[in-house]
Amino acid sequence: MYRAPIEDIAHTLKIAGLEEALEKKRFGDLSADLVDAILEEAAKFASERIAPLQEIGDRHGATLKDGIVTTAPGWKELYRDWAAGGWNALTGDEAYGGQALPMMLSVAVSEMWNAGSIAFALAPMLTMGAVEALEKHASDELKAIYLPKLVSGEWTGTMNLTEPQAGSDLGALRARAERHGDGTYRIFGQKIFITYGEHDMTDNIVHLVLARLPDAPAGTKGISLFLVPKFLVNEDGSLGRRNDVFCSGIEHKLGIHASPTCTMIYGDSISGDGATGWLVGEENRGLACMFTMMNNARLLVGMQGVAVAEAAYQKALAFARERRQGRAPSANNGTKPGDAMSPIIEHPDIQRTLLTMKGLTQAARCIGYACAHALDMARTGKGEDARHWADRANLLTPVAKAFATDIGVDVASLGIQVHGGMGFIEETGAARLLRDARIAPIYEGTNGIQAIDLVQRKLPLGNSEHVKTYIAELRAIVDLAAVSNRAELGDSAACLAFAIADLEEATLYLQQALAEGRQAEALCGATPYLRLFGLAAGGAYLAKGALTCEDAGHSALCRFYAENLLRETNALKHCVIDGADSLIAAGAALQDS
Amino acid sequence: MYRAPIEDIAHTLKIAGLEEALEKKRFGDLSADLVDAILEEAAKFASERIAPLQEIGDRHGATLKDGIVTTAPGWKELYRDWAAGGWNALTGDEAYGGQALPMMLSVAVSEMWNAGSIAFALAPMLTMGAVEALEKHASDELKAIYLPKLVSGEWTGTMNLTEPQAGSDLGALRARAERHGDGTYRIFGQKIFITYGEHDMTDNIVHLVLARLPDAPAGTKGISLFLVPKFLVNEDGSLGRRNDVFCSGIEHKLGIHASPTCTMIYGDSISGDGATGWLVGEENRGLACMFTMMNNARLLVGMQGVAVAEAAYQKALAFARERRQGRAPSANNGTKPGDAMSPIIEHPDIQRTLLTMKGLTQAARCIGYACAHALDMARTGKGEDARHWADRANLLTPVAKAFATDIGVDVASLGIQVHGGMGFIEETGAARLLRDARIAPIYEGTNGIQAIDLVQRKLPLGNSEHVKTYIAELRAIVDLAAVSNRAELGDSAACLAFAIADLEEATLYLQQALAEGRQAEALCGATPYLRLFGLAAGGAYLAKGALTCEDAGHSALCRFYAENLLRETNALKHCVIDGADSLIAAGAALQDS
Repeated sequence: MYRAPIEDIAHTLKIAGLEEALEKKRFGDLSADLVDAILEEAAKFASERIAPLQEIGDRHGATLKDGIVTTAPGWKELYRDWAAGGWNALTGDEAYGGQALPMMLSVAVSEMWNAGSIAFALAPMLTMGAVEALEKHASDELKAIYLPKLVSGEWTGTMNLTEPQAGSDLGALRARAERHGDGTYRIFGQKIFITYGEHDMTDNIVHLVLARLPDAPAGTKGISLFLVPKFLVNEDGSLGRRNDVFCSGIEHKLGIHASPTCTMIYGDSISGDGATGWLVGEENRGLACMFTMMNNARLLVGMQGVAVAEAAYQKALAFARERRQGRAPSANNGTKPGDAMSPIIEHPDIQRTLLTMKGLTQAARCIGYACAHALDMARTGKGEDARHWADRANLLTPVAKAFATDIGVDVASLGIQVHGGMGFIEETGAARLLRDARIAPIYEGTNGIQAIDLVQRKLPLGNSEHVKTYIAELRAIVDLAAVSNRAELGDSAACLAFAIADLEEATLYLQQALAEGRQAEALCGATPYLRLFGLAAGGAYLAKGALTCEDAGHSALCRFYAENLLRETNALKHCVIDGADSLIAAGAALQDS
Repeated sequence: MYRAPIEDIAHTLKIAGLEEALEKKRFGDLSADLVDAILEEAAKFASERIAPLQEIGDRHGATLKDGIVTTAPGWKELYRDWAAGGWNALTGDEAYGGQALPMMLSVAVSEMWNAGSIAFALAPMLTMGAVEALEKHASDELKAIYLPKLVSGEWTGTMNLTEPQAGSDLGALRARAERHGDGTYRIFGQKIFITYGEHDMTDNIVHLVLARLPDAPAGTKGISLFLVPKFLVNEDGSLGRRNDVFCSGIEHKLGIHASPTCTMIYGDSISGDGATGWLVGEENRGLACMFTMMNNARLLVGMQGVAVAEAAYQKALAFARERRQGRAPSANNGTKPGDAMSPIIEHPDIQRTLLTMKGLTQAARCIGYACAHALDMARTGKGEDARHWADRANLLTPVAKAFATDIGVDVASLGIQVHGGMGFIEETGAARLLRDARIAPIYEGTNGIQAIDLVQRKLPLGNSEHVKTYIAELRAIVDLAAVSNRAELGDSAACLAFAIADLEEATLYLQQALAEGRQAEALCGATPYLRLFGLAAGGAYLAKGALTCEDAGHSALCRFYAENLLRETNALKHCVIDGADSLIAAGAALQDS
């Protein structure tokens, strides 16, 4: 059973800069003690309350009958107790009852909720997105009505973007909105893949919906954002009439069964004159509002990758300690009794698997926490400082999302393999983690979209200089590792230096290609580039962790990662720099075949 | 829906040496025309009969009630028609009604059955294993009773190895057998994970069971193989009394739902004096008998990896041609209308994904077919020639199994990704392929075991020279590619030469390590070495295919593979040669933590 790895989490927060930020009072009077206490309590809730319900949620799923969605047994109570514990209010604005705690803490506890159950953690993740969008873009009136309930978690929020013909390409969406004359709007259309679009955990649900006004320009510049509550809210705050938004179906999915994935119909029933909605932000500026919240959502989805990888690692490690098969080479040293089978953790191949799982998990965690740190620094900074950190957060977001969710799938799959035949049996739980993990590279922008975003929008940041500054910072860490002369780091510094050089070379190549208008060539390398970025950055952070901490485990893991997993960066660099011609030629042959 | 790729299969059979073998009359009077006809008919059955039942099989699964297992609707009729078509008898001995066709044909049609449904193809795969074991090791009396029924497919066979404490380590098994005095034996014990251990598709089931005699030595040298039929067979061939072997449970698995995975209890009910069994081969030599059939089974499981990868590729390709999102860079060339979204197959990142899927699938297919060719040459050869080809088959078997099943999982996962959100919805079918694919790296010897087998048992073959001969053959192909001066191959030859050099260097290092008794170090590199082997060999075969065939698609795919996917070999070589120290250090830290 999952136990939140508080030490690793606290260690990673430190590496990512929490300690320094606290010392410099970047987060007001937030103290290290309070941080520790919050982590402790969150760990307890995630391990003792959420994780035990994961299997029940998976088995029962959510069910739809007569438009009503019923969540799995215990789910409603779990959510109620979680919200009552104040967890939903962690990052919300203090004006609306929030605790305004930094994003660093939010990602740390979010990792725990998601390791307990991604299907559970999704509900508050979407509420948090709605809170952010409303905080930044809604009128004071809307804020006053909705934010207190959403910040406390008394109501949940949803994001309604996708339509059948509009997934990655939001410009293609067709849901429409009509001005009603009284300042409200009427919304019509179908939205699909709406997570927790309908459920029985709260009395009301606040939908944020992208739709087009009749006179809107085509494409992404003609999209507006609307707030559409399940129940309208009376002036006294009580719930009024049922709005014309209904769930018409829920999906039968590979994983995250406990979270209902809904098809939502706006304006197709009851009165027939549309769902009542309120504009959030300006007309035709909806996509900008949505992107505000999507950036944080992307980071949080990245934490799902870290979370599921951590859960899979813990499960595989526990199994490898118990399960005995064969005799490990080390068992012939005479220290073990003659005939006994070795715990499989003693077999080198199993050790390689477990260390790969642990190394990738920790690398992804470091990147996610560094991204959260940048968000906090941007929020609490001013002028040039704030701009610098905003660029940093923007640069790291696609890596935090895609690298972590890719390794989430890989690590969950390796976790099954460690279990042998038992891994394929659902009761073991390892298979469920792979099923749950598989969604994260897809939603909140597929990982292909993240890679394109990284290359096309993030490499040019700061006049193309920001990424170079970042690479220089990674190199400075590696230089420290080199001069540390720590024997237990082996060849880590040399391997890391090669990896950073690969990253730099690939970066400069892509910037050059973009500058010369060779867009297709640059895009050919996007996915290998993102992985190269993640591997190299993660390796540097592992080195920082080893240098920061006396624990021998950190040094050993850093060395394994550097001398084994980091070798891949050279291949990835070649894919970026030398791979496009063959891809374009073979891609053309594929299209024509 | 899956369509068997007859052209690719025929092309690969040619590269693997079928044409030459036919010309040299290695397979008697088997003609190329007959081969083509068989492939055509198999393709039809796989595409039109098996594939359409895949979803039903997955949804219904197999159910156990009162000891009786009922397969999914249509499954029984599917199997009946398949056996009636003579497909089960393809490779069986002619003396027992078989067609004695070569293994090359068997793997080709097996790929098709498995692409239609792994869950279906498993039943005859296990029967084929039983047939082989009985043909080679059973008494003439047993052969006369059982082989005609097993060859025709009127009855199915099973392999009973695993027990709760004995998975990879068969030496630990505890099922026991007692001599009964009349030449028969009584079997007692529990076996788990028995595929099609009980079902309703045939009137009888023939179990091959590993068990220990009372006076047997401990470990693997005290295991005997027994034939235990579900129903005893009367002298006239009719079915007699029910034997004391029953299914006590079926597993709830991640995938291959339609195939019942049974817990089998021998000698625990009815009369209570054990299940009646007959010895196959000699007492205490059961493991050797089992390994005979496991080698072919491993190759066939490798074909499951190829099959599921092919099915996933076809599904993703079809989706990528239909689904439109965004505008591809190539769409800005002015040849496409202004505002339309591009089919996602035009996006470079999707092309990279599809080409990666196709390249890895074809590489794995080539290795599997080459292994089958070696088996056929060994079977039909004499003296030194037969020994050479037996070594070749032994060398390639672990690669054919593990490389193919690893890429089966990867390709199925990439297939989900191409589908975006739809990939996570079960109705799409892409997710089912990943669920089905995930078992193949586990059963018939985990891929970790295959890697250890490759390093420890296969590199020493032929006084450590055989693998060098093989590498020299791969290099000869690459040399041909180099002198071919085909512009469309780009830098393929240079990339391939590097990959072969990586393979050679890693091979020599491992042989040296083994020779010096550095067993643990060698085992540390086993898994990356196997992947290196598979990538390099697969690349050489792709080059051979491009040189053999005018079709531009083959050259383009070879080039993409060489200039992108093959880059990884260098990293893998480093893991083998330079990775062990850090693995051993970190592994020790992990054990102690």
